[in-house]
Amino acid sequence: MFRTHTCGQLSAADINKEVTLAGWVQTIRKFGSITFIDLRDRYGITQLLFSESLNESLEKNPPGREYVLQVTGKVNERSNKNKNIATGDIEIEVEKFTILNKSITPPFKIEDDTDGGDDLRMKYRFLDLRRNVIKKNLELRYAVGRSARNYLHENGFMDIETPFLIKSTPEGARDFVVPSRMNSGQFYALPQSPQTFKQLLMVSGYDRYYQIVKCFRDEDLRADRQPEFTQIDCEMCFVEQEDILNTFENMIKRIFKDVKNIDYNEPVQRMSWEQAMWQYGNDKPDIRFGMQLCNFKYPAHLFAEIKDKQAVPAINGFPVFDEAETVVGIAVPGCSEYSRKQTDELVEWVKRPQIGMKGLAFIKCNSDGSFKSSMDKFYDEEALKQMAASVKAKPGDLILLLAGTEERTRKAISELRLEMGKRLELRKDNEFKLLWVLDFPLFEYDEEGNRWVARHHPFTSPKPVDIEMMIQHDPSIKNAADYLQHPYANIKANAYDMVLNGNEIGGGSIRIYQKELQQKMFAALGMNEEEQQHKFGFLLGAFEYGAPPHGGIAFGFDRLCAILGGSESIRDFIAFPKNNSGRDVMIDAPSAIDEKQLDELQIQLNIKKD
Amino acid sequence: MFRTHTCGQLSAADINKEVTLAGWVQTIRKFGSITFIDLRDRYGITQLLFSESLNESLEKNPPGREYVLQVTGKVNERSNKNKNIATGDIEIEVEKFTILNKSITPPFKIEDDTDGGDDLRMKYRFLDLRRNVIKKNLELRYAVGRSARNYLHENGFMDIETPFLIKSTPEGARDFVVPSRMNSGQFYALPQSPQTFKQLLMVSGYDRYYQIVKCFRDEDLRADRQPEFTQIDCEMCFVEQEDILNTFENMIKRIFKDVKNIDYNEPVQRMSWEQAMWQYGNDKPDIRFGMQLCNFKYPAHLFAEIKDKQAVPAINGFPVFDEAETVVGIAVPGCSEYSRKQTDELVEWVKRPQIGMKGLAFIKCNSDGSFKSSMDKFYDEEALKQMAASVKAKPGDLILLLAGTEERTRKAISELRLEMGKRLELRKDNEFKLLWVLDFPLFEYDEEGNRWVARHHPFTSPKPVDIEMMIQHDPSIKNAADYLQHPYANIKANAYDMVLNGNEIGGGSIRIYQKELQQKMFAALGMNEEEQQHKFGFLLGAFEYGAPPHGGIAFGFDRLCAILGGSESIRDFIAFPKNNSGRDVMIDAPSAIDEKQLDELQIQLNIKKD
Repeated sequence: MFRTHTCGQLSAADINKEVTLAGWVQTIRKFGSITFIDLRDRYGITQLLFSESLNESLEKNPPGREYVLQVTGKVNERSNKNKNIATGDIEIEVEKFTILNKSITPPFKIEDDTDGGDDLRMKYRFLDLRRNVIKKNLELRYAVGRSARNYLHENGFMDIETPFLIKSTPEGARDFVVPSRMNSGQFYALPQSPQTFKQLLMVSGYDRYYQIVKCFRDEDLRADRQPEFTQIDCEMCFVEQEDILNTFENMIKRIFKDVKNIDYNEPVQRMSWEQAMWQYGNDKPDIRFGMQLCNFKYPAHLFAEIKDKQAVPAINGFPVFDEAETVVGIAVPGCSEYSRKQTDELVEWVKRPQIGMKGLAFIKCNSDGSFKSSMDKFYDEEALKQMAASVKAKPGDLILLLAGTEERTRKAISELRLEMGKRLELRKDNEFKLLWVLDFPLFEYDEEGNRWVARHHPFTSPKPVDIEMMIQHDPSIKNAADYLQHPYANIKANAYDMVLNGNEIGGGSIRIYQKELQQKMFAALGMNEEEQQHKFGFLLGAFEYGAPPHGGIAFGFDRLCAILGGSESIRDFIAFPKNNSGRDVMIDAPSAIDEKQLDELQIQLNIKKD
Repeated sequence: MFRTHTCGQLSAADINKEVTLAGWVQTIRKFGSITFIDLRDRYGITQLLFSESLNESLEKNPPGREYVLQVTGKVNERSNKNKNIATGDIEIEVEKFTILNKSITPPFKIEDDTDGGDDLRMKYRFLDLRRNVIKKNLELRYAVGRSARNYLHENGFMDIETPFLIKSTPEGARDFVVPSRMNSGQFYALPQSPQTFKQLLMVSGYDRYYQIVKCFRDEDLRADRQPEFTQIDCEMCFVEQEDILNTFENMIKRIFKDVKNIDYNEPVQRMSWEQAMWQYGNDKPDIRFGMQLCNFKYPAHLFAEIKDKQAVPAINGFPVFDEAETVVGIAVPGCSEYSRKQTDELVEWVKRPQIGMKGLAFIKCNSDGSFKSSMDKFYDEEALKQMAASVKAKPGDLILLLAGTEERTRKAISELRLEMGKRLELRKDNEFKLLWVLDFPLFEYDEEGNRWVARHHPFTSPKPVDIEMMIQHDPSIKNAADYLQHPYANIKANAYDMVLNGNEIGGGSIRIYQKELQQKMFAALGMNEEEQQHKFGFLLGAFEYGAPPHGGIAFGFDRLCAILGGSESIRDFIAFPKNNSGRDVMIDAPSAIDEKQLDELQIQLNIKKD
């Protein structure tokens, strides 16, 4: 060992001890003939005092920022104590020091508030990882993983590793593939998830499986996606939806307790997918704040179960509203006194291409009970009052209204609600609100192919009441315009998403375990029998040998950690992340490979010029 | 929940309770009008009794082997108790049963002693996994992993995930590569180990890292190799070899205790690589038994430190011995009365191509003190006596002697020793003997390229005493015949292997952390500066910013589990293994992929006809 103690360990109780420390030079300060160095390691910072007698050695071997130093000396009580750090009561009076390794000047400051931009920090990730903020993130990540493992272990789950070199069965997202040298012309795929393997483990009777496991998706990366990401992946046998919800909301509560010391004693809210879309415009609502939508029209599609009595009739008179498929509004609390500049800015905000609306209407609910609106030409005071009542606005509120086609408008009002929540500081980093979203549609309609696609994945079971109907009906859609009339349009999935503060942190379903139903599902998704056999023959085969009822869930580990760490970005919770082009700029990967490697794999490049 | 209890849970304490169980039909037995079914799940087996009143239902819906059944009934005391199973005191008097899923007849028996061959079991792995023996293996694997995690956690190690999509830097083994769609013409590689990343984590100051992680090697598969395998991968800062040895022998002892309830209190033996080669002919000796080699000649190369005084001069007279580079022998206890047939069989055994010797000489040390040898024509009684004394044979022993070229002969005697140990049942499954092998050579000589190759990997540090010498000397070998005279031939590595019962279960080293030394090492391996920058520029760069002294180790998790499970084969300790052609025959991977996928990746097949 190069040390007797770490840099975070010594306290007043150690005074007069002879110790040896090793670590990195954080700062060097000179006071007259005395030199102070803050020595840093993973565990903390300890102040070193180099008295005059060491000046000659210091001049001969001057330590600099980020040098690796080993020092031996005596623990002294500090004259001016630093209450901010654990070792603030003491300092080491250095007797002997050795420079274990030198450092050139780092390209950015190794401090919480660094001067390094994103690109620079990624290129020198090994230095970025020295910063305390990043270290705290990785420590939190480790704590979350450990807490999940402990909970799952105590609840009888077994960690079972599933393979990484599997078969390419592209559905939805693209697979990363791996050419096989030993089986020329053939490829493995990297798993998008261990889905079919964990189901096979249930068929094998393993009963409760988990894995914290890397998964891979070759997608065009959006801001906060990574080509490789980590899941807490779980599956159980002989369970119904209720058992899964209970088991895994308790896991998340346990993580809250272990990692954040939060007692989440309240019951986890539940909401149907339709209700979430209706009230929040979104299937992963942030329920830390209200501002629920008021629906002024009942849209022609999307909602099967929410009856139109729940929609408030819009007041006729404003042509934009009269003609729109959807009119939705929210009441933003306490913003009735927004200036023209402020409302103009909001109009511009919704017109941005990311939101894509043509305009924004508003009604100011003045504190004296009067109204002022951007539609004063079209609506009288009484109409405005009626609308304000519909959206449950109080005096002092600002009502924001959007109108347009159903999908875009609902998405836009959802974004606007989140934006206003953020501006009003209603989305607090240190407040955590869990929500189960349930009863998703089993299928989505794919206009291009005039066919059904799986909303979750092809292994999700319909609700038990819909199984017989699904088996009996032909999935093909005769008349594209009438797809909503097809019985499949209304089949609900036995699926559930867990939402935390407006982020989907986990999702899962009760699975199909009947061969006939699984075949029907594949057929509904446009797979003929040959394709079914080629891609999923092993699963259909397994269902012939006594497959038990089962279901599971997978949590996005990176995102869960980021939210618990109070961050929007998953990248700072991954030790070595990739950038938006899927590159690791530190190691410079991906990169060209040798001709010899290509030859051995019996492949060649086939680059298209444009 | 489909059940109130598991099939392994009920005991006499539950008698008269109304319970619901779910599981698989293991066996069905009829006694007159009564039917007994053994119901199985992950937790055990419970006997179900179907009385006469259920016969009509049973006839209408007859359960069969491996059917999934849900039953409700009363817990009764059993008349003839089964002491072999936990639930043997009770049975369930079934009131109601539901067939949750049917099964066709399995292709082999779901029993410990199955009638399924390897290929069939692999194709139907999901059924094979139902067998109790395989389940015990995976449970053991989970227990080993959990024990390691607990130990490492308690010792301050942090689980930090390293990336799977990295850069191809083939050294020794081939990389699996992954074409990048977003960076056309470029490839990721799957990691052969997280080596450089864990070293960067040390440079970042993470101090104690671990990961139980999949690694990938595209090698021609030998019997017991897998293209993807799992490592317990660890690294520490500010440590010397002694710290690593202590930390990790305690980890293995902890695993012994947690998993096998073995108190391994004796100190772990240590042996230099030269000593292991000298005494056992092997760098991973099985020290559960003696039968150490007697070296009758001091070979011209291989041993730098073992002085020839330790070699026993062979007695002149037998031309085969006189001319051989190496003559080695072992004394096999209690086998002096081997028949001619038995000694002939041993001669054939060493002549097999896997061993490749031309013959085997023997001396029978009769219990009356006389000798009888296959070399009686050449040696008199006195010579035989002298040789017997050299090999420390006792009356009743059979001395086996091999002669030939150094490498082949030493390998052969090592195999012969293991074989005799096995035949004499000296290699007991339930006995565990740990050993550290130390002081490996840093380099091996590559005859073909007339250059040095790294014995461990290019990041292994030489022993501190050799560092300066290594930096000062030119690695190039002027005269191939004299390579042993090159100072690099005698550099020892700061490396260590942990051996358990003759298997290498872990290996590691103290790493190079000085940029200059790392560059020298790369140069010694024939990498020019450009290549060094291209492949490992990030690491050399990191070493400029204060890299601390560090070292680590990686354990082969699959093999460790297999040995603890008393098996030679790792395959039965992996849930979904691949066969010797790297295929998963269950899912039929690898397989052809769509033209569209190839197009998107901008690659095409380039199959050579022969």
